Amino acid sequence: MTDRIQADHSTGSPLLVVGSVAFDNVITPYGEKEHILGGAASYCSFAASYYTDVQMVGVIGNDFGEEYLNRLSSRGIDLEGLQKDESGPTFFWKGKYHENFNRRDTLDIQLNVFEKFRPDLPDSYKNTPFVLLGNIHPALQSHVLDQLNGNAYILADTIDLWIDIEKTALLELIKRVNLFVINDTEAEELTGGKNIILAGNKLREMGPESVIIKKGEHGAILFHSNGMFALPAYPVTELRDPTGAGDSFAGALIGRLASQNSSDFNSIKEAMLYATSTASLTVEAFGCDRLESAGSKEIQQRVDSLKDLISL
Amino acid sequence: MTDRIQADHSTGSPLLVVGSVAFDNVITPYGEKEHILGGAASYCSFAASYYTDVQMVGVIGNDFGEEYLNRLSSRGIDLEGLQKDESGPTFFWKGKYHENFNRRDTLDIQLNVFEKFRPDLPDSYKNTPFVLLGNIHPALQSHVLDQLNGNAYILADTIDLWIDIEKTALLELIKRVNLFVINDTEAEELTGGKNIILAGNKLREMGPESVIIKKGEHGAILFHSNGMFALPAYPVTELRDPTGAGDSFAGALIGRLASQNSSDFNSIKEAMLYATSTASLTVEAFGCDRLESAGSKEIQQRVDSLKDLISL
Repeated sequence: MTDRIQADHSTGSPLLVVGSVAFDNVITPYGEKEHILGGAASYCSFAASYYTDVQMVGVIGNDFGEEYLNRLSSRGIDLEGLQKDESGPTFFWKGKYHENFNRRDTLDIQLNVFEKFRPDLPDSYKNTPFVLLGNIHPALQSHVLDQLNGNAYILADTIDLWIDIEKTALLELIKRVNLFVINDTEAEELTGGKNIILAGNKLREMGPESVIIKKGEHGAILFHSNGMFALPAYPVTELRDPTGAGDSFAGALIGRLASQNSSDFNSIKEAMLYATSTASLTVEAFGCDRLESAGSKEIQQRVDSLKDLISL
Repeated sequence: MTDRIQADHSTGSPLLVVGSVAFDNVITPYGEKEHILGGAASYCSFAASYYTDVQMVGVIGNDFGEEYLNRLSSRGIDLEGLQKDESGPTFFWKGKYHENFNRRDTLDIQLNVFEKFRPDLPDSYKNTPFVLLGNIHPALQSHVLDQLNGNAYILADTIDLWIDIEKTALLELIKRVNLFVINDTEAEELTGGKNIILAGNKLREMGPESVIIKKGEHGAILFHSNGMFALPAYPVTELRDPTGAGDSFAGALIGRLASQNSSDFNSIKEAMLYATSTASLTVEAFGCDRLESAGSKEIQQRVDSLKDLISL
């Protein structure tokens, strides 16, 4: 039985996660680590697995050994939708973070099997009521939506690359999602404004009923028809590797919503506490290590501390 | 009767404010304005005047006309301690803010009568139970403390200049204050660390029972023996001139504490709501204009909105 944070008054719904699976080489001011299990789908799925049943869709290559599959399945993650492409290696990314972690450079990127990836869903995933579209090409994100039956609750994440080169496809996608998650600089870039509050309001006008703008160490702001909610970040004192923080945030956020079977304003606010607490663990070690090993008890302790931190 | 925000269950204590009085020329991406009434003591006093009786100590020169004195006294500010030096003009500062307001350059600075300023207190101010030491030379801040009788509650503010050139005097001062307020980059500079949480803890070890680190648009964090409190900023959409935001924050903060006659953990948290709401008005117009004209009702509305913004 997978270690989980209990939902209140709910048996929970499963969550479908779609995104990249990668091996990363990461250089930070604290050191360097190679061949880290990474990619949006990995971080999202690990994070969400603390809350609900996760169905993971992505692609792995001929270098993705059993030990990595075991890490995912040992967190109860359903891998029926994880495609294996024997024609080449897994997506590879190498990046370097600078002093203060406020900037990172991509040193190498090899798409490999990810280049031809098409997120075709197993039939058993097509009725899943909560869906996380992790950062991949917005046309592929839309392709996932085209396969879904019924009225799933959709969270989508993106990165600046798609704003730069696929803005039209991204704007089409945004119209179709319930909750759009984006970081502050991307929100400004996408809306052409310099004020984060105005940017959040503009993004809501583009379609989603809810928008969350992530500000890294400064927390996150939710924009919703019922109002706004501003949440400081969990106070991290041992930042080691920020890779996957945003994915962990998104995974825990919709994982919590799925486990509560709810997506109203108050549920999203409460889920943001779980999201920032879960993401705070990710950044304390390279890759998914800390996220995988933390356990539900430590996450819940952070959520309780965070509640104290913001309580009058 | 000065327009005020009512205290709960308290008749309130007066507040002594010490700092600079200046005329500023300010250039921002939105325009330029000359001969603005400024200086830490002005912003602090205007902000605090919405909460309690304010005694203002500073120095003005031979160019400081009656209309400026009237602006201060019309907010009920006691000017017995405001020294007039006929030997020259008032302290002058000219600065320019860049795109996004994240950096400012000082284009001109003329100390004028401020150069020989010594904050000698009228006898009637020496028993004032709440004291705000606005940003001036730390030795002058200490000189104010030397004149006080009894056990006043002391808030001190500073700027990077004193960290650079008067660190020893500043460290001496910090030991003697109850609440030290500083912005994030200054906190990192003073403690030599790059993590804001660790910096806040280190600053508390230097003496003050409470430390508040201001993060501008990202809010503020309180460090106290009872715990931490993180507060997002009031969501400003019309940033026009950030000059005096920190002073307004400090003035409203201790003004509220004085009016409540209280300085415990919960009182400081509550006062931070008033501080960020008051400062949010200051930045919406050049100089003190918006701060002076806002009125207690608008401040209270912002406090109520801010409470909603952070409520689960």
